[in-house]
This record gives sequence, C-alpha cells and structure tokens, in this order.
Amino acid sequence: MTSIDKRTKANAIRALSMDAVQQANSGHPGAPMGMADIAEVLWGDFLKHNPANPKWSDRDRFVLSNGHGSMLIYSLLHLTGYDLSIEDIKQFRQLHSKTPGHPEYGYAPGVETTTGPLGQGIANGVGMAIAERTLAAQFNQPGFALVDHCTYVFLGDGCLMEGISHEACSLAGTLGLGKLIAVYDDNGISIDGEVEGWFTDDTPSRFGSYGWHVIADVDGHDPEAIRNAIDEAKQTSNKPSLICCKTTIGFGSPNKGGKESSHGAPLGKEEIELTRAALGWPHEAFDIPAEIYTAWDAKAKGQNAEAKWCEMFEQYRIAHPVLAAEYERRLASTLPDEWYDQVGEKINQIVENKETIASRKASQNALQKFGPLLPELIGGSADLAGSNLTIWSGSRGIQNHADGNYIYYGVREFAMAAINNGLALHGGFKPYCSTFLMFSEYARNALRMSALMKIPTIYVFTHDSVGLGEDGPTHQPVEQTATLRLIPGMSVWRPCDAVESAIAWKEAIESTNQPFSLIFSRQNLEHQTRNPDQLECIKKGGYVLKDSVEEPELILIATGSEVGLAMAVASKLSDRAIRVVSMPSTDRFEAQDRVYQQSVLPISVTKRVVVEAGVSGGWGKYTGFDGVVVGIDTFGESGPAKDVFEHFGMTVDNVLATISDMLSDES
Amino acid sequence: MTSIDKRTKANAIRALSMDAVQQANSGHPGAPMGMADIAEVLWGDFLKHNPANPKWSDRDRFVLSNGHGSMLIYSLLHLTGYDLSIEDIKQFRQLHSKTPGHPEYGYAPGVETTTGPLGQGIANGVGMAIAERTLAAQFNQPGFALVDHCTYVFLGDGCLMEGISHEACSLAGTLGLGKLIAVYDDNGISIDGEVEGWFTDDTPSRFGSYGWHVIADVDGHDPEAIRNAIDEAKQTSNKPSLICCKTTIGFGSPNKGGKESSHGAPLGKEEIELTRAALGWPHEAFDIPAEIYTAWDAKAKGQNAEAKWCEMFEQYRIAHPVLAAEYERRLASTLPDEWYDQVGEKINQIVENKETIASRKASQNALQKFGPLLPELIGGSADLAGSNLTIWSGSRGIQNHADGNYIYYGVREFAMAAINNGLALHGGFKPYCSTFLMFSEYARNALRMSALMKIPTIYVFTHDSVGLGEDGPTHQPVEQTATLRLIPGMSVWRPCDAVESAIAWKEAIESTNQPFSLIFSRQNLEHQTRNPDQLECIKKGGYVLKDSVEEPELILIATGSEVGLAMAVASKLSDRAIRVVSMPSTDRFEAQDRVYQQSVLPISVTKRVVVEAGVSGGWGKYTGFDGVVVGIDTFGESGPAKDVFEHFGMTVDNVLATISDMLSDES
Repeated sequence: MTSIDKRTKANAIRALSMDAVQQANSGHPGAPMGMADIAEVLWGDFLKHNPANPKWSDRDRFVLSNGHGSMLIYSLLHLTGYDLSIEDIKQFRQLHSKTPGHPEYGYAPGVETTTGPLGQGIANGVGMAIAERTLAAQFNQPGFALVDHCTYVFLGDGCLMEGISHEACSLAGTLGLGKLIAVYDDNGISIDGEVEGWFTDDTPSRFGSYGWHVIADVDGHDPEAIRNAIDEAKQTSNKPSLICCKTTIGFGSPNKGGKESSHGAPLGKEEIELTRAALGWPHEAFDIPAEIYTAWDAKAKGQNAEAKWCEMFEQYRIAHPVLAAEYERRLASTLPDEWYDQVGEKINQIVENKETIASRKASQNALQKFGPLLPELIGGSADLAGSNLTIWSGSRGIQNHADGNYIYYGVREFAMAAINNGLALHGGFKPYCSTFLMFSEYARNALRMSALMKIPTIYVFTHDSVGLGEDGPTHQPVEQTATLRLIPGMSVWRPCDAVESAIAWKEAIESTNQPFSLIFSRQNLEHQTRNPDQLECIKKGGYVLKDSVEEPELILIATGSEVGLAMAVASKLSDRAIRVVSMPSTDRFEAQDRVYQQSVLPISVTKRVVVEAGVSGGWGKYTGFDGVVVGIDTFGESGPAKDVFEHFGMTVDNVLATISDMLSDES
Repeated sequence: MTSIDKRTKANAIRALSMDAVQQANSGHPGAPMGMADIAEVLWGDFLKHNPANPKWSDRDRFVLSNGHGSMLIYSLLHLTGYDLSIEDIKQFRQLHSKTPGHPEYGYAPGVETTTGPLGQGIANGVGMAIAERTLAAQFNQPGFALVDHCTYVFLGDGCLMEGISHEACSLAGTLGLGKLIAVYDDNGISIDGEVEGWFTDDTPSRFGSYGWHVIADVDGHDPEAIRNAIDEAKQTSNKPSLICCKTTIGFGSPNKGGKESSHGAPLGKEEIELTRAALGWPHEAFDIPAEIYTAWDAKAKGQNAEAKWCEMFEQYRIAHPVLAAEYERRLASTLPDEWYDQVGEKINQIVENKETIASRKASQNALQKFGPLLPELIGGSADLAGSNLTIWSGSRGIQNHADGNYIYYGVREFAMAAINNGLALHGGFKPYCSTFLMFSEYARNALRMSALMKIPTIYVFTHDSVGLGEDGPTHQPVEQTATLRLIPGMSVWRPCDAVESAIAWKEAIESTNQPFSLIFSRQNLEHQTRNPDQLECIKKGGYVLKDSVEEPELILIATGSEVGLAMAVASKLSDRAIRVVSMPSTDRFEAQDRVYQQSVLPISVTKRVVVEAGVSGGWGKYTGFDGVVVGIDTFGESGPAKDVFEHFGMTVDNVLATISDMLSDES
C-alpha cells in the first residue's frame, strides 16, 4: 500500500472532474465529485480488472448508469492505467475525442456500455449479471471458476425515478442475481432541485419489495462504511444488493456542494479555486502528482489477476479441451463451424417445405432449425411467448435452469431490450427478445442504444399490422415499421414468407455490428416461388420476385404480408408489363451498389406502386412524384383481420384500381 | 334494494363476457370473470355516475388499466344503463362497433380513456386525480364541493410489471392523491403462465414505499371484504390507496378458472356450458333477465345524483357567478374571450421584438405571453424545467399550491405523458409537458395514445438536434422529429424563430382534436423578416419565406434551425432564382388544399433541396427523384455545437456545394 490516503485519491477524481468540465465549459461535475469516495473504494479495493486488457472476459463489469457523471469513469480509467491519457481528459466533450460528454461504448477503453439515457445502465447491468451467471453455469467445472465476476452499477435519483429501473430491478430480484451490486448515489438533488418535491420513495423498502438485499444509510464519504457495505454485498450470493449511500453532490465545493448548481454546469473558476482549497488539493488543473498516480495504478494488480486466470484457463483447457475451445469461440463472437456447414441446407429445407404459415410461425421454425447449432442463443419475450413464438424445443428457462437459454421477461419491454443489450455487451451470447411490434415503442430508446453501440442484438416483433385484427388500434402497428427504419444502423426486415423469414434470421445471426428488427405477421402468408437467383438476392434486401417479359411499365413494391397481395394483383394483370419487387429490408437494399439497385428499380420506370399496410411516409424516395403508396395513414380499427384489411383498401381490387388509374394516365 | 344477490349480478358480467368473447371468437374472458365481484361492489355500491350523462363533470372516473378485460367495462356500461345495447355487446370486436377489442375513448359512452397498452391506464388515472384535486382547489368554495369525485383504477399484474406504473404511482404517492383508488387484480397469472417465475414483487410493500395506503389480502370474491376495503380507501384522504384483491382469473370456469387458458381466448362452447352450470346461470347467451337488469340499473340513482349536483351548481352560480361561468367555460374546453381578443396583439409584439433567441426561450416567452390568458394551462417537465424552459412567471407548483398549475414530474417521461393525457381526458385543463426531444422516445406510446384519442395535449420537446452539442449522441436527436411526424394525427412543429414558435404555440392551444409536438432548439435562432402575407401563412405549415423574382430554378426547403442556414445560402446565390420555403409543420402543410401546396412547391420545380439536421428518410415525397436532402443519417457526436454542425455538413458551404452540383447538372 502507498501512503496516499483514500480521500486524496478520491480528490484526484474531483479535481479532474471539475477541471475537465471547466475546460470544456460543459458537463456535470456534481456526480463525480459526490461519488468519488465510493468509486475510490470500489475501484481501489474491490474491482477485478486489468487496465492493459479491458476485454479480459472475467473482469468485473462496471456500469455508470448515471452516465452524465462521465468524468467519474474517465478519471477512474485514466488513474488506474487504461489507455486514456491526460490529453484525452483535456479533450473532454470535444469532437472525435475518446472522452465524449456521456460514456460511449467503443470510445474510451473500459467503458462497458453507453449510458446517459437514465435507467438503462442498471438494466444493462442486469443483462450482464444474467450473462455472467448463465455463462458460469455453462462453462464452470469443479475447481475451475472460469466465469466468476461481479457487475457493479452506480446509479442516481434519475435512474431510480425512471420506470425501467422498476422493470429491471424487479426481474433481477426474482432471478436472485447475487453478483449484481448497485450503489445508489442518494444525494437528494435532481436537475429541478431538491427531490423531496417529486421523489419521496422509501428506496430501501422499494428494493426490499423486489427481493433485493439492501444496505441502507451508508455514508458515501466514509471509506470504511463503503468497504463494509461492499463486503456485505459480495457475501450475499442469492440476491442482488443495493447499497444506499448518502452523499453530497459536488462534494468539496464550498458554495455549490449539496446544491443543484453543481449538477450540470462548470463550477466556475473562482469556485474551483475555493474547492481546491477546501479539499486541500493544491495541484494545478490536470496535474496529478506521481505518487497519486502510483497509489491509483491498477496495472500490476490487474495484470497479475488476469495472468492467474489465464493459468487456470490453460489447466481448464487440458481438463476440458472441448469446453475451452467453445468458451473461446463464444467469447470471440464467432459462429460455430456447424453453422456455416449447415445453415444453407437448413434454408433449403425451408424452401422445399413451401409452407404457407404466419411469419411469426416461420420465425419459430427458423429458431427451431438454427437453435441447435447455436448454444450462444439466449432469448425471451415480454410475457408473450405463445404469441411471439419465441420458444423452440431447446428452450430452457433460466429461472429453473442456471445454464438455460430462455428468459421469461414478464411484461417489461423496455428493460427486456436494455437487458438484451447487456447480454450482448457482456459477451458469450447472441441475444434475441420479443414483443408485439406495437410495444417496440415501450422499448424504443433501448433499440436505439443497440444501434448506437453497434451491437448485434436481435428483436423479434410480431403482430405487425392491422392484420392482427380484433385487438384494435392500440395493438395494430401502423407507423412502427416505418419508424424503426429511421433508426440509423438498425436493420429492419419484414419478410413475406417462411423463406424470407429464415433468411432474415440468418442475416441477424450473422450480424456483428448491427441490431436487427425482425418483423413478423400474426396471420398466414403464402409461400412464394423463387428461382435460385432470386433466393440468393433475398439477402440484398430487395429483389425482383416476378418480372415482366418486356421492360416493366409499372413496378409494384411490397413488403411482408403485402407481397402476396402484390403478386395476386400482378397475376390479374398478366397482359401488362408489371414487375413485382419484394423489399424485405429497405436498409439492406439501400446498402447495395447503385448498379444492383438500378437493376431492381430502374430509374426509367417512374410508375411505381408501393403496397405496405402501414404509413406511407417513408416511401417517397421509392415512388418519386409519379408513384403512389397504397398504405394506411390513419390508426387501425378493431375487427376480424379480413374486414380490417378490406376497410383499409389492402385488397387486390383497390390496388388494381390504383394501378389502372396510373396506367390510364399514360394513354 | 332488489332481491337479486350480488353474486348473481356479478355473474351477469361473467356471462356477457364469456359469451361475447365466444361469439367474437376472440378476446379476454379471464379478467372480467375474475374481477366481476369487485366491479359489482364498486359500481353497485360506490361509483357516482349518471348513465344518461356520461359527461357529467363531477362523476367518479373509472379506468380499466388492464384494458384487455374490455368486456368488463362493456358489461358494466350495458347493465347500468348507458347507451350501449345488447346488440352492441353482440358486436364485440367487430368493425365499426361501439365495442372494439380494447376500450377505445369515443366509441362506447362511459369509456374514460383508451386502455390496452399496459400501465398507461393507471397513469391516466393519476392525471385525472391531479385534475380533480387541482380543479377542486380552483373552484370549490365553502359549502360548495363542486368538484369532489374519486378516480378508480383497475389494474393487473401486467400493469404492475410495466415501468410506467412505477413512475406514475411513485409520483401519486409524493403528491398524496387521496381520491385515487386503485384495485389490483392479483390473480397470479399472466400470459406466459403463473407469474411466480417472473414477477415476485411484494406489491403491498412496494406501494407502501411510495407512500400509498395499502389494503392487502382482500378476497376479491367476497363482496363484504371488497366493500370494507373501498370504504377504508375512501376514508383515507391524504394518500392514494391500493386495494390488493386475490382473485381467480376466469372465475366460474371449472377447467380454465385460475389458469392462463382463460386469459386471452374464448373458453369454448363446452366449457361455457360447464361454467353456466357451475355459476348457476341458466340463461341463454346475451339473455339477461329483467330483474337482473333492474338490480343493476343505475339510471335513477345517477340522474338523482347529478340533479342534486346541478341544484348545488345553480346555488353556486348565484353565490359565485364569475367562477360558475368560468367553470362552465373550462369544462366546455372553450378558450376565454380574452384569448381571441389578445392573442393577435401578443403575437404582433413578438414579431416586433425581432428577437434572435433559442426557440426554447421563444417557447417560454410565448408561455409568458399566453399564460396569463389561460387559467386552464397546466404544465410541467420531467426534471428539466430550467432546460426546457417550461416555467413562466405565473407557474405555481401543485406540490405546494393545491390550486397551482405546474407539475414537477421528476425523471418520469412516460408517466408524464400519460398523466398529461389523463389531465386532458378529465376536462378543465389544457395540459403541456416537456422533456428533451430525445426522451420523447421514453414516452413514445403515450404520445401515440394522445393522437389515437384525438385529445389536444401539448408536448414541448427541446434540444432538438445535434445542435445541443457536448452531451453527444445519446442526447442528440437525429431521427426523432421524423418519427414523430409518422404518428397519425400528431401535429409536429419545428419553428425557425421566435415568431414561428409563438404561432406554433397558438395553434397548439387552439387545437381541439389533435395533440401537438412543439420542437425547439437549445441554441439561438435568427429572427426572420416576413411580410404580413407570410406571417399569415405560418399557420399553413409551410410557406415561401424568400422568393426569387422569376420562376424559381431551385427550392430550398428547411425547418427549424436550418431555415436560417437556408436563408444564408440563398443570400449567397442572389444571382440565381432560389426560393426558400420554411416548413415548420409538414402535417399542417399537407392538410392544405392542393392549390396552396402547389403555390409553395410547384410541381414544375424538381430541383429541390431539403435541409434539416436529422434523418432524410421522411423527405422523399418532397424531393422526388431529382431532389436532395442535406440531412444527418448517422448518430451524432459529442462536441461544441458549431463543430458538430460543421462535422455533419450543416453549413452554408456544404449546402452551396450541393446546390451547385444540382444547378450545374442543368448545363
């Protein structure tokens, strides 16, 4: 141990935080200054990590759910020896720096997840803790605790007010995630001021009601008390723990400490000088004395810890060579050889089956085909397993099987999606989750976070249009597919039959840097016949499903359930040159080269009709001024699917009428 | 009293529910059958309502948060004497019936809100209870309890698992909403089966931690126990109450009662016969004996109750004529005469001020101008008052002022929006609420519900683009404006300066059947000069802000902060015929007649450039194949706003380059 006391170490965080925020003239000094003592104890005395290898698979995971306090994590990463220099810290909140305003996954090493949208970090943490426990059950062997790490989450009042904290923590309690340890920064302040006017929960009692182990009334500025609390939490193996720390926001600032004014703005030069004096921190901005760096340095300890683990892993490899290889494969996110050997054949079987089934059923069939090849698959549904059809014969609930692969999420769409993100971020898993397409809206920002982090989570959204029928407009998606398509980086697929459904699943499973939204129907969809070229083109997102002999005079573009409708329309117009394009994924189609795109949608053909049972808003770039969208620009209606489709003009006759108007324009 | 016992009355609900679901071959019999006894006690012994006038302002409000149990409310409305015939019941879940799959506001009389998306009903109820208490404080006078009603909410496991239940109920506890009484249908079953695998909250303790009065362990099939519980709840005036009723889902069904199989599918003919026998209900489907109708009939009692209230109101009118007139105006949702007298002048002042300010500040200025005219205005922010600028000088927090008009929502976006809906549905208020545009996503489905119900709530979304700067991609909206535009019926406005901001507010305030999303910048926006014609055209959603002398060769279309950019570009091209169109609201523009639309965007001008700091996806119908969108189709980046705008090409130079490419095409 060094002679630098813990408060001084913590003050290094405080100084870096207030100085970086001041230099950026933007940011949140309050939380890092308030949580510095807690962070010092956790990172100094407990956290298992190796700054030289932020990807060591058995490291503890650390999530800053109150992500606006980003200078806390940047300070910790810098001080303990990660590849994050003082120059990086000085670049806080500058364009292209490694230290953006909120911790962004993929920017600074050691940032485990992107946080800032409140409440999602704790849900990511729940996902990581599920991943840890499940992976441990799948790989640990007597004498080999290969997977054995904690997930620590810092969170604040904001996270606890957000609904997602309820969803995630309630489920964590039910699952008894003993290695999840959350630390609540109870500083009594949120942006609008003292929280007593709008947040008066008895938080310990609330978490007790979820089945958590709660350690209340910890002085968040007393290292001994913090250490004891973390010790106690670590000893509790059958429940997640919440450590409630009373802290002073902006601790150390004589005039702004304990006040909202330290939350989200620079302290100001004068106040910073007063704070330096109050803390007894005489050093210049960004100047950390060598002995303080030494006291913080976690490189040797981390290297040592990982080396020991690697030694164990080599013994494990000798004792369990197959498992060891599989562990390495899983953690490297490479698919098994069997996948590549067999996936083509399995898709051929689906092609040959020519089934006319609901695409949600086709999705389940795809899972059933692919699941046995993919031990990394872990999935679930927000209490709609029987409707989403997310269970296959190999599904085993993690509630009853520690090494299982199925999660009964309960009615918790937002937490489900954020947990899905946590599972992916942890590593070792290919997660999917599911709800009705409508309720993708409840999870909306977590889907965005998947895309922002470029993690290949899979969302299965069923009951994809007014075709769900009687449940009515609250459950009938109209604008949802279109809005999902607008999330940058989200790959959205709305397959037209069992074959496209299987290809969509294949693409999702093979994705390494994009989340996928797979959108399936409640109702049956007719099998479409394709030649091998067409089959090959499905993965391009859009392709000619039926062509005219001559240059087409009109192109029908359709997705999902409307492809069958478009084909029926085209067959009624066999005397005209009509091309039908199936467009399961606009984003994938738009990622093709211009030559391919033109081959499917020649610029010369301006008579175009898009048919999709949803809002027309997104299709303008496909129709131009001369085309038409047969869509649904109002809310749905409750009624049997057939009646509802007819009511909204999703019929052969209506599309024919539209086309005949356009073709007659010509004459 | 009649001689029909309470169980028999409850069985009428059970019979109607199982028979209607069977006839529709679709629906949820389990919840209505399970909650029938509770509903019988509440509606028979407590509920203050008048079937002949479902709009009586002092009725108790009843919300079925577990809206899939819609046959419960339809049965109650039918049996107690609302204008909902047995023929309507037989049309359950049929197209154009008054009895859609979920209770839809505006379809059956007596349905107070549309429910189905779980958890939102209880939040609507919180909004109604806030409305009741606030309206009472504003209008009640000694001896005149003009506003004095309860809000009853039924909810199930699904609602309680949803995060929004946490947000709404936590706030309700803080606010001490004593007249909010929720009844939890604790049947232990959700769609995936017995909830113990995924939902093990100690719900009484959870609600205790929110500061609710909890009545636990009530037998939901024992009328006496239910009555005592409701009595106790009604006597608790300083806290909301939760009555936890143990029930059997599908009560009465010998083989499906207590099981998931009764939840969401018809019982089947055979099981229905067995249930009839078990319940001792010998009547044919849809046959309710006259004496049972008589026992249920609430018409006389309701008429009487309302008559008494009207009598009181007439006395009130004598004693407090101004207040009485104001009460009538407020409840009729008509704006005050002063509004129409003064709004024009107030906007003229804003025009004359020519301020270059952030549009969020312009929004606050509009509030400041309009607020004094509008006692019905009630607003708030999800813990971002100082950023959203939602407080004006007349704002008084309801926490400290019972008759106030400002709600500190805490970090609870989803509940805030659903509470906003409840405030609007209750009547007497014009509610607005606010958060960062990004976190509209947390509230997404409640915004949709405003639009679906056609209620004129107002959403204020600030920090509307990458222009928010340092907080980075988690906080920088890119796709959010575009996705809001896709919600049918949502009017979306992104004003370019203080004048457009004020007009947008005016349109929102005057709306009677549409919610508005008002989208404002963090950063300053330059004042634009307009002639009176242009000023008049702002409300048309899109108009020519700067025109060329000749027929334009190119049209620049821009919204919000990019209008100033477009104007700067146009001024650089003063030798070319460039028109600039400001398009604050695409939905409003598209609602104009074709002649007007063509006058702004002549079909002959195909060289069009849209400039908006967001995804290009929705603009295809404006650009056609020949136009271009200068937008941002990736996520944002953390950095000072100026750097970020430059990084993404939101600059005069980049737009000029785009235009010069297009104009040179010509040559």
